[in-house]
Amino acid sequence: MTDDQGALYGVVLAGGTGTRLWPLSRAGHPKFLHPLTGTDASLLQATVGRLDQLASPERIFVVTGVAHAAAVSRQLTTVPEENVLVEPSPRDSCAAIALAAAVIARRDPEGIMGSFASDHLIGEKNQFTEVIRTAIEGARQGQLMTLGITPTRPETGYGYLQCGGTRGDGPIMRVEEFKEKPSYDVAESYVKSGNYLWNAGMFVWRVDVFLAELARQQPQLAAGISRIAQAWDSAAREEVLGEVWPTLPRISVDYAVMEGAAVVGRVSTVPGDFGWNDVGDFHTLGEVLAADPQGNVIVGQDPETKPGVLLREAENLVVVPTPGRLVAALGVRDLIIVDTPDAVLVCPRERAQEVKSLVDALKDSGELGYI
Amino acid sequence: MTDDQGALYGVVLAGGTGTRLWPLSRAGHPKFLHPLTGTDASLLQATVGRLDQLASPERIFVVTGVAHAAAVSRQLTTVPEENVLVEPSPRDSCAAIALAAAVIARRDPEGIMGSFASDHLIGEKNQFTEVIRTAIEGARQGQLMTLGITPTRPETGYGYLQCGGTRGDGPIMRVEEFKEKPSYDVAESYVKSGNYLWNAGMFVWRVDVFLAELARQQPQLAAGISRIAQAWDSAAREEVLGEVWPTLPRISVDYAVMEGAAVVGRVSTVPGDFGWNDVGDFHTLGEVLAADPQGNVIVGQDPETKPGVLLREAENLVVVPTPGRLVAALGVRDLIIVDTPDAVLVCPRERAQEVKSLVDALKDSGELGYI
Repeated sequence: MTDDQGALYGVVLAGGTGTRLWPLSRAGHPKFLHPLTGTDASLLQATVGRLDQLASPERIFVVTGVAHAAAVSRQLTTVPEENVLVEPSPRDSCAAIALAAAVIARRDPEGIMGSFASDHLIGEKNQFTEVIRTAIEGARQGQLMTLGITPTRPETGYGYLQCGGTRGDGPIMRVEEFKEKPSYDVAESYVKSGNYLWNAGMFVWRVDVFLAELARQQPQLAAGISRIAQAWDSAAREEVLGEVWPTLPRISVDYAVMEGAAVVGRVSTVPGDFGWNDVGDFHTLGEVLAADPQGNVIVGQDPETKPGVLLREAENLVVVPTPGRLVAALGVRDLIIVDTPDAVLVCPRERAQEVKSLVDALKDSGELGYI
Repeated sequence: MTDDQGALYGVVLAGGTGTRLWPLSRAGHPKFLHPLTGTDASLLQATVGRLDQLASPERIFVVTGVAHAAAVSRQLTTVPEENVLVEPSPRDSCAAIALAAAVIARRDPEGIMGSFASDHLIGEKNQFTEVIRTAIEGARQGQLMTLGITPTRPETGYGYLQCGGTRGDGPIMRVEEFKEKPSYDVAESYVKSGNYLWNAGMFVWRVDVFLAELARQQPQLAAGISRIAQAWDSAAREEVLGEVWPTLPRISVDYAVMEGAAVVGRVSTVPGDFGWNDVGDFHTLGEVLAADPQGNVIVGQDPETKPGVLLREAENLVVVPTPGRLVAALGVRDLIIVDTPDAVLVCPRERAQEVKSLVDALKDSGELGYI
């Protein structure tokens, strides 16, 4: 344990399905539960493991839904039971984060929490840890800290942070405005200017600062969370949660709190460059995992299930095999091949984003068993 | 029943694996057992069904190996039990055909038999029936008749028949020589000359004529078959078969009998043009089955197992789904996608012939469960 371990409450949001990772990611077994990390660890487990220099296990919280509470609990064996916060229904990120903040505040009113998606990959853990430590400094001083990723391309799938000058002489910068997903031309101008960072949806703040800003901007949501928090350690927890939770607005934390906080100068960022990947689709997954000399990435192959994959004159594939079955590919390139116990997908890497449309088609035709 | 039904003994050879149709075709479940016909019928069933204007059910014989005797018997419910001839071990086509000829000769010494592979598709059944009727005429006159397919391309994967003039005023032509699989240039010259036909490996002859020619060219094989035939209707059948069969030479009927018979003027042919396809690989299978407006061929899809296949902006695919699983393809073309309960194959149509190399690779690596 380093000196810093224990300084942070780590909150992991284990929600979302990831339909662009179909047929691997399903409503019943979403992407964060899958070992898409190049090791045996699931994305969720890797997310928690990545915090080990920053938060001791009893300071790790996870917020998840009723459908995945059991799987999440079993994957995260070191997280105390009482730190698995189960939402009665999906209310988007603001309610989930606010619940965690309120529960932490009961234990440690000025505690510093970091909020992390459970389905991102980070290549350079040490750099990530350093960036979070810097963010903790900013949080201590009362800022709502957001992690900004130095953009490497004019990506139109992400939101951006428009940065102002630095605060003090450290790397912390003011965030002047949150920008929605831009057009390609706008994204290009952002990247050229050097003043914009990708909004990776990772936040660090004092729980009291966040809850105060929530109360200012979202009084209804704050009041509901406050009622739930008061009942948290009582016999009435389930009763109150069941009554209040469904009334909370469905809203993202960016939109509900961060955009408005930036306008009044309360948001700062630490630029990060630690190999962040949101594992949005199989193509980007293939870009971040190790490839063989032919550029083929085999995701989550367990050597005990060999052969698993048989490739011959194949290049630049992303292959997801499934235990007990063989994927054979001959003379193909730049394809995604995802095999699962009940479905197989074949699609070019460049069209990875459109996989979502297949899920929509299945939904439309009532084939709910496959989604 | 037409006047001609009953004129022919139909012999179907249910052997061979079809490794170019892997992973659908396996050693344990070879291609002739699969419904690759565009209907529910297997290739084997379609082969027998195609003879219904030529041979009554009690005149249909099938020669198969010990591994597939049960499956063959169950698929061919109309074939009498005693007409399922089970070889103790594979001895190539000459022994299989000779056994059938000898068994038929015991019942009908001058009977006319037609010998057919169990894994070919024929598009125009009526034309096929007419060609066989013509071949029966030639067989009655003592010729060893072979069916010749009018070539449509300079195919290097088939043997050819070099034809001489016609016999009489019908379509029957003399076969001067059997030609092995040629190089591309040679195949091209064959097709241009108009004197060459594809050797489809379908024969029609009087059993006495064939057995006499066998005795002349292959005395050892003929003697062995004769011993087996004499014991056929006795209690000693299994004993004699088990003793003699393993001593028979492994040799194809083309090489053992037909080539030598052609040299002495005993082979004739009827040119046929009835949509013959040897279903050698998934690409040629795709060429012969009905395609959707985008050129996609879905092989053997049972409507009850829907969705089975979900295609989106896909063209010119050959897709083999498997019951209870979904094959989804987005934005791909000219691919073969074959799904089975334990393996999936992805390969371009133009490389369909090379699928065999995957089976070799599995064999080399000891993965015998997949082959």
